[in-house]
Amino acid sequence: MRMYDLIKKKRLGEELTTEEIKFIIEGYTADTIPDYQVSAWLMAVFFQGLTPRETADLTMAMAQSGEVLDLSEIPGPKVDKHSTGGVGDKTTLVLAPLVAAAGVPVAKMSGRGLGHTGGTIDKLESIRGFNVAIDRKSFIEQLKTTKVAVVAQTGELAPADKKLYALRDVTATVDNIPLISSSIMSKKIAAGAQSIVLDVKVGSGAFMRSLEDAFALARTMVEIGNNVGRNTVALVTDMDQPLGFAVGNALEVAEAIDTLKGQGPTDLRTLCLELGAWMITLAGVTKSAAEGKSYLANLLDDGTALSKFKEFLAAQGGDVELVEDSELLPQAKHKLDLLAPRSGYVQAIAADEVGTVAMLLGAGRVTKEDCIDAAAGLILHKKMGDPVKIGDRLASLYTNNEDRLAQAKEILMNSFKIGEQQPPAKKLIHGLITVENI
Amino acid sequence: MRMYDLIKKKRLGEELTTEEIKFIIEGYTADTIPDYQVSAWLMAVFFQGLTPRETADLTMAMAQSGEVLDLSEIPGPKVDKHSTGGVGDKTTLVLAPLVAAAGVPVAKMSGRGLGHTGGTIDKLESIRGFNVAIDRKSFIEQLKTTKVAVVAQTGELAPADKKLYALRDVTATVDNIPLISSSIMSKKIAAGAQSIVLDVKVGSGAFMRSLEDAFALARTMVEIGNNVGRNTVALVTDMDQPLGFAVGNALEVAEAIDTLKGQGPTDLRTLCLELGAWMITLAGVTKSAAEGKSYLANLLDDGTALSKFKEFLAAQGGDVELVEDSELLPQAKHKLDLLAPRSGYVQAIAADEVGTVAMLLGAGRVTKEDCIDAAAGLILHKKMGDPVKIGDRLASLYTNNEDRLAQAKEILMNSFKIGEQQPPAKKLIHGLITVENI
Repeated sequence: MRMYDLIKKKRLGEELTTEEIKFIIEGYTADTIPDYQVSAWLMAVFFQGLTPRETADLTMAMAQSGEVLDLSEIPGPKVDKHSTGGVGDKTTLVLAPLVAAAGVPVAKMSGRGLGHTGGTIDKLESIRGFNVAIDRKSFIEQLKTTKVAVVAQTGELAPADKKLYALRDVTATVDNIPLISSSIMSKKIAAGAQSIVLDVKVGSGAFMRSLEDAFALARTMVEIGNNVGRNTVALVTDMDQPLGFAVGNALEVAEAIDTLKGQGPTDLRTLCLELGAWMITLAGVTKSAAEGKSYLANLLDDGTALSKFKEFLAAQGGDVELVEDSELLPQAKHKLDLLAPRSGYVQAIAADEVGTVAMLLGAGRVTKEDCIDAAAGLILHKKMGDPVKIGDRLASLYTNNEDRLAQAKEILMNSFKIGEQQPPAKKLIHGLITVENI
Repeated sequence: MRMYDLIKKKRLGEELTTEEIKFIIEGYTADTIPDYQVSAWLMAVFFQGLTPRETADLTMAMAQSGEVLDLSEIPGPKVDKHSTGGVGDKTTLVLAPLVAAAGVPVAKMSGRGLGHTGGTIDKLESIRGFNVAIDRKSFIEQLKTTKVAVVAQTGELAPADKKLYALRDVTATVDNIPLISSSIMSKKIAAGAQSIVLDVKVGSGAFMRSLEDAFALARTMVEIGNNVGRNTVALVTDMDQPLGFAVGNALEVAEAIDTLKGQGPTDLRTLCLELGAWMITLAGVTKSAAEGKSYLANLLDDGTALSKFKEFLAAQGGDVELVEDSELLPQAKHKLDLLAPRSGYVQAIAADEVGTVAMLLGAGRVTKEDCIDAAAGLILHKKMGDPVKIGDRLASLYTNNEDRLAQAKEILMNSFKIGEQQPPAKKLIHGLITVENI
């Protein structure tokens, strides 16, 4: 088999066989196929697409390019959740203990990642004492006893995906739905998931800006799951404004705790219940997502989920006290309020710009080496559709480094659009993709 | 400027500016832009194309990536000829002295190349004593006195083209008309041509298999010439069967000498007159190609062209005696005749298979390191449309290495198609592209 022929075959729009796709991924991982041939192939894929079968094969070839986690020691079905990423997305902090409280094991290996704020691991690290570096044996042990464990990824899951993504990133071949889908799904499969619930975000703060693209991505991922024997469901959810009110690591932990107490922002609670309901339904705890939602709502409202969260913190050495006293979380030295310059209704809050503000305040990383300011970020006091009076607080900004505070405030001001008319209510859940409605 | 953005721009089907194309070519030549970005860009070009302006800019950027020959010391207009390559194509051996005899300087720097037979340089080297390694000063001096000089290319003309071609060759991006066109034209421009006559071959023995592709290539190259200020004319000519009767280095020299004596195969003479007529017309010697043809026919028939050829040989140390005695050319130890297995008419002679036969006999190179057997090759005794009787000689094979003689004979047998009906006469010249009819 020669890579040249496979580039040409794809360039001509033909379908590659399972063996051919394996050859490409194994060869690239082993450095026997050079970058310049793979990038030409990726660009050919960009124009000619991949069939569902090819996409599934690519996913499995990447998943199997390194270690595939074996979670068989942990009793019960293993369900994973993945969000395509958005501003203020702290659902994992709520879902991990909530779903575990329903009896379904939640085994999470998370990366840190770059972005507006840190990843789940960074957020958890804003909890004093919380240990994200647990060895494999203790991880499995904790899952058996506590049913929930979240650790920083060690070793390399799906190394082919990592290498391919880095190449796509410099050759303008990132924004392609089969390639994005297989990248996400390969990591989930390598992490040992049997069932997968996907949260595909759409809007100004998401990678997918249009409903059409978001649904296409959702459909492709559910199709992959179906083709590789992983029960997969995708929700397409709104990211035109940040999720909840808090954006920033410690601030998001506090908001997640509120939600686990049965309080918290409505949109965050609703989304967690939707996603969690699908997780426990795929795991067989409930018969339908509707049943799952009321089941989980009870666990939030009766304190079971919160207890599980405390148990989880304790198991990983985190300070359980802060569950009752959020002031034990890192506090910012500087705070600044953003006031409404006029009265009216909030028409829009550009989520991408809010993300930029959080990053400027110190909540995120631009490069891997950057340090995160756990206390930095912002709290929105108004969301889309809310009435405001001139001088009302729209948001509060938090940081330990005031150098960029003024700039951050100005960008945040511009992200708010205030108008006379109350805008129509915004949908949170745009749709659901299951194997039945791909 | 970032290469990433230029890949994306082309991927989106947008037109790159002159500066952007220069940035890519200069960066790639200087190794500041990596292979993997250039190959992704090439594949995007493959799908999105290049506008005539972009193609012209690419051509000039490649031409200027190394030395551009300055032929201004040689008086008179500099006209170059280029053939896209075919089997039995020895036109340069005839045209160089013929056009020089008409008073137009012919300054040729040729490569050796890979293929069925050697390049013009290899063919000339089958002439005892012929020196292809002349220094720049003697080259110019010879051109002033003799008006014709053919030397092996030293140094590197259009190094960007060489590098880009090598990358295209391993990334399945060779067969793209704007890329092929700019590659050819960049080398001609770097070699100092002011006017260019192109011989675009079409048929089983050519890179372009269909008339449509051949005309598209011809049009694109004439358009480039027009856009970069080089008078360019292209003839689309037949390569469905070999040109003339001889295929092989010394055998082709002998056939070229016959043609310079006013004899030789009709198709070869006709093509040389057509191409030569355009060369001297672009140089201003004649007012039209029709006038040019009769002008050159006279030079062939009255011995002027042959005298110029002798002068040319003498200037480069070649054995002039062999012009009158072709046995002074290298002779093969082994000869084998191919006889007609039935009577009828020659319907077709697959030129690509004839090329393979010549290569097997030792006339060509597969890798740069291969040695050429100057005496090897074949002489066709019949061409398309000719009547044959069973047992007639169809062709004679020549080689110094008889190991592959039987295999070569079998392939050559299969390349001949003999049928009952006389096939319709085959066109030699399929069309002409000038600036007026792009």
